[in-house]
Amino acid sequence: MIKRIAVLTTGGDAPGMNPAIRAVVRYGLANKIEVMGVFRGWWGLINEELKVLEHRSVSGIISQGGTILKTARCPEFETKEGQERAFNTVKKFAIDGLVVIGGNGSFTAAHLFGAKYNVPCVGIAASIDNDINGIDYTIGADTAINTALAAIDNIRDTATSMERIFVVEVMGRKCGFIALAVALAGGCEEVFIPEKPFDLEEACHNIVHGNLAGKISWIIVVAEGAGHAEDIAKKITEMTSLETRSVTLGHIQRGGRPTAFSRDIALNLGKAAVDCLLKGEKDKAFGIVNGHVASVDFATAIKKKEFNLEGIYSLIKTLT
Amino acid sequence: MIKRIAVLTTGGDAPGMNPAIRAVVRYGLANKIEVMGVFRGWWGLINEELKVLEHRSVSGIISQGGTILKTARCPEFETKEGQERAFNTVKKFAIDGLVVIGGNGSFTAAHLFGAKYNVPCVGIAASIDNDINGIDYTIGADTAINTALAAIDNIRDTATSMERIFVVEVMGRKCGFIALAVALAGGCEEVFIPEKPFDLEEACHNIVHGNLAGKISWIIVVAEGAGHAEDIAKKITEMTSLETRSVTLGHIQRGGRPTAFSRDIALNLGKAAVDCLLKGEKDKAFGIVNGHVASVDFATAIKKKEFNLEGIYSLIKTLT
Amino acid sequence: MIKRIAVLTTGGDAPGMNPAIRAVVRYGLANKIEVMGVFRGWWGLINEELKVLEHRSVSGIISQGGTILKTARCPEFETKEGQERAFNTVKKFAIDGLVVIGGNGSFTAAHLFGAKYNVPCVGIAASIDNDINGIDYTIGADTAINTALAAIDNIRDTATSMERIFVVEVMGRKCGFIALAVALAGGCEEVFIPEKPFDLEEACHNIVHGNLAGKISWIIVVAEGAGHAEDIAKKITEMTSLETRSVTLGHIQRGGRPTAFSRDIALNLGKAAVDCLLKGEKDKAFGIVNGHVASVDFATAIKKKEFNLEGIYSLIKTLT
Amino acid sequence: MIKRIAVLTTGGDAPGMNPAIRAVVRYGLANKIEVMGVFRGWWGLINEELKVLEHRSVSGIISQGGTILKTARCPEFETKEGQERAFNTVKKFAIDGLVVIGGNGSFTAAHLFGAKYNVPCVGIAASIDNDINGIDYTIGADTAINTALAAIDNIRDTATSMERIFVVEVMGRKCGFIALAVALAGGCEEVFIPEKPFDLEEACHNIVHGNLAGKISWIIVVAEGAGHAEDIAKKITEMTSLETRSVTLGHIQRGGRPTAFSRDIALNLGKAAVDCLLKGEKDKAFGIVNGHVASVDFATAIKKKEFNLEGIYSLIKTLT
Repeated sequence: MIKRIAVLTTGGDAPGMNPAIRAVVRYGLANKIEVMGVFRGWWGLINEELKVLEHRSVSGIISQGGTILKTARCPEFETKEGQERAFNTVKKFAIDGLVVIGGNGSFTAAHLFGAKYNVPCVGIAASIDNDINGIDYTIGADTAINTALAAIDNIRDTATSMERIFVVEVMGRKCGFIALAVALAGGCEEVFIPEKPFDLEEACHNIVHGNLAGKISWIIVVAEGAGHAEDIAKKITEMTSLETRSVTLGHIQRGGRPTAFSRDIALNLGKAAVDCLLKGEKDKAFGIVNGHVASVDFATAIKKKEFNLEGIYSLIKTLT
Repeated sequence: MIKRIAVLTTGGDAPGMNPAIRAVVRYGLANKIEVMGVFRGWWGLINEELKVLEHRSVSGIISQGGTILKTARCPEFETKEGQERAFNTVKKFAIDGLVVIGGNGSFTAAHLFGAKYNVPCVGIAASIDNDINGIDYTIGADTAINTALAAIDNIRDTATSMERIFVVEVMGRKCGFIALAVALAGGCEEVFIPEKPFDLEEACHNIVHGNLAGKISWIIVVAEGAGHAEDIAKKITEMTSLETRSVTLGHIQRGGRPTAFSRDIALNLGKAAVDCLLKGEKDKAFGIVNGHVASVDFATAIKKKEFNLEGIYSLIKTLT
Repeated sequence: MIKRIAVLTTGGDAPGMNPAIRAVVRYGLANKIEVMGVFRGWWGLINEELKVLEHRSVSGIISQGGTILKTARCPEFETKEGQERAFNTVKKFAIDGLVVIGGNGSFTAAHLFGAKYNVPCVGIAASIDNDINGIDYTIGADTAINTALAAIDNIRDTATSMERIFVVEVMGRKCGFIALAVALAGGCEEVFIPEKPFDLEEACHNIVHGNLAGKISWIIVVAEGAGHAEDIAKKITEMTSLETRSVTLGHIQRGGRPTAFSRDIALNLGKAAVDCLLKGEKDKAFGIVNGHVASVDFATAIKKKEFNLEGIYSLIKTLT
Repeated sequence: MIKRIAVLTTGGDAPGMNPAIRAVVRYGLANKIEVMGVFRGWWGLINEELKVLEHRSVSGIISQGGTILKTARCPEFETKEGQERAFNTVKKFAIDGLVVIGGNGSFTAAHLFGAKYNVPCVGIAASIDNDINGIDYTIGADTAINTALAAIDNIRDTATSMERIFVVEVMGRKCGFIALAVALAGGCEEVFIPEKPFDLEEACHNIVHGNLAGKISWIIVVAEGAGHAEDIAKKITEMTSLETRSVTLGHIQRGGRPTAFSRDIALNLGKAAVDCLLKGEKDKAFGIVNGHVASVDFATAIKKKEFNLEGIYSLIKTLT
């Protein structure tokens, strides 16, 4: 029977991690289990940096970006020694299950650690890149998309007023989800993503063609994994002789007050993760699938994300 | 074969109506059909207030709240004479199909008008109340929820600083969806909705009990259909002797820049509605169901919304 | 010589109080004085609810609305017994000076208490009403104005889309400053403030006149001290037969992330208040006058605010 | 006597230019003069791209970033031929005065053009850099500062959660005003501006020193004219071995809904500029000085801005 669990956040922080922590703690307490918070992800497990979280430990965090448990990279956890030390902490504190809030890397580590030491691990999908296979929406993606969209709306003012071309780089190392969502919602003219080869020459041809027809401003969204805004802007200037500017949104997309959606799914996923451990299940990640809370096995979640990008890409191009 | 369609917005405006109009117009044009915009909903159809919308007619509206086609109540459309005049406009302008962006009332009217005069009508679910049966998400709901949440976050600052009880009235005449979503995301202590009887005495008992235990602030969300914030606040003051304030968010929830989600679904639903007419289908409303674009028959959509509110209500209470 | 001071926040909370506390604490520490934080305003002084604030006690609060020191009404401080107890706390903790962050009521109390018990008191003007005499800008006013303006912008979407008249009630019990600033920035058609009698009949005449000329939407801003939005809306409907809606923004204007201006002036005023005590001065309130940090005697600050409202009122009417 | 004036926006767009245009048009009309809008700045004057603006031409623009008149660089206006053509337009359309909304470059051009051809020119200070000499606040600065601050607040979430150093580049080629305002309001630890030599080695020393004392995150603001965030971040990593990230906010600071302050001053300055021409005055720029509308001669305005940066810099360092 589960008496005590621990929760940790690993990988890049995502807005909504705090509401997820809140749900794990309070739903755990409501189910008569104790919840410990581990600081700085796996590092805290290795170094015994953890403490019991009370009902009030998570007061007021629902509206805050980032994570009160902090997060860190932890190469040591990839070593046998690191893992042993982490397992010792699990034993020492009689932790019956681990809730890991994070992304692909976090789930890979949890999958291996859980199997090797027979520690029930369950994941909550939190990643602004929305890049977890089998899961439609992760915690943080909606917030990041809205932050990027606000930036695009701002840039549109200048693009229209100064009649310029802008290349805007958004998050997404291996996954173009955010770029597509932002390009669609921003009414952007073009989008470059890692999953789809793009033809800059054709894009430039379209720009010149449109320019002759009187079109005066463009916003081209590029996922960071598909290229660098600065480089692409330079090439467009070279190819078209039209003034082109670049903006790299970077880390502003990572923080901020979580949106209602990022919070609501975080709270639901936190509950689901605790329920999973209570039922004696493990080795799976929770996220939103087809509009509802669902889980996928860690083994599936950590594969390269597959999703239907053609529909949205085609819609972007049609509506321009 | 469809050559020309018309689009109109009716009922209360919702953020995302403009992106929906954009999609109907541009997706229509991309499919070689002409799109006319009707002004002020059914009134414009009766009074021949409509015009052809070009590609550029919808430039720059993607980020704007409200509706460029305007909207209005139209009691005249409930009369036979009004309907005849509207049908005459449909004939005169050789309109092969109508895209109706709106809510329950709009769909009821479209359902009847379409059947009576054999005019293919298709609906796009747009309503900040998210009260359309068979549809999980309407255009505008996500924006309204985030607007209400920002207000709740602001109020939380004062509730905490001044240690007070607040009753906050949000949209939702017959449907508690928004109230539940906001109460959950806002970490609110209680929520009153039209679908569920509530016991104010019990709520007051909880407040007094919590107060004795050191809890110092409450936010109680009430859907407008469940009661008035002002009245409830007065009763709480009477019953508990604790200072209680009320805020009625009202129309601020109706406008504003649409969120990414409200825009993205609006664009997808606009495409789907046009596709529906192109395929020769009709008499159905499009919305988001299980995370994807889907349709329900008008006859279903206009029934009282059924949705599982117990799960979310129970989560709100558990996490408080 | 000043060795230890205390800081408290009283009256209604205002966004920027936290940055002001941060400045008082850190600027104090930088000047080798100890700073105690008193909880719940005068109540905390009476009840010995105070503690030493360290450098890190104020970490991360710069971006938060409300006040970490909390605030409360305190009728007991109006009694001799309450004042004696407060003075005992001052003596017991060897407090050499008090920084009072608040508005008129707070300064009145500080003025009397300081004189009666010879306790050096200095004020920092914080009030979303911006109603302190002799001071152009208080902490919080800019944030409240921007919050109200965002609401007005939202309402404008609906006013335009549905072609309606809106009456929007904003903060300002005795002072129309916020109403004027918001009405000007919101492009509102009319504004009613406590300092200036208004003629509702004339306003209705203008509305009907404009309506006949094709003007379709109005937003009328009313300061809470000049009347209630609901009542005014009803009267306009009666007089004009045009549909009129009301919105009372209420407490959403009180909280929220402080704007850059509210923070920057809070930080500067915090420093100025500590400098004042260090110089052995007292009995004055600090605020922004003519664009810069300045002080006015408490005796002046607590009088009814005088400011030139005709210029801005006339500009609003001219630009409509 | 003035019968017709023209208004144009030049240089980089700034949020609030639209409200300024609104004020010039409507205040002009209220004073019985006709107002023409010139498109794309000086280019429009050279190429006769201008039209009469009516009362409704400026409806709804008060809340929009950018400029409906568009703006452009115009090297041709630096040539004699360009100026002659512009003057011909002035004569042809019987323009009695020019209102130039822009920054230093715009005022330099207006100063020369006005003197050479005896065309009364008056300027309205609009620049997100707030870099106009003799003027405390330009249109757009407050909005840009708040946009940058929102970004900094977001970044703070990650800086704290991941315990990292961030270097954030904000606007300000020759002027550190925005950087200072943002760094102060954001609670940033360091700021580098063009007006003040900075010692990166010393900054790194402070970081390492703080790091040893347990301080875990830093945000360093750098004005674009003082260095590039990316380069500085690299050097800090080299010198301290601590992970440092850079973000360049870029053009997101240029657009967006103008804040209440940016709108209110724009409207007041628009009125003042028209009044100036009506009084037969010219060759001066209007802005906010000491909290009020004021003017400085173009000759003064176009000098390098002098302002007291020591006070604010010292406050930033003291409060860290």
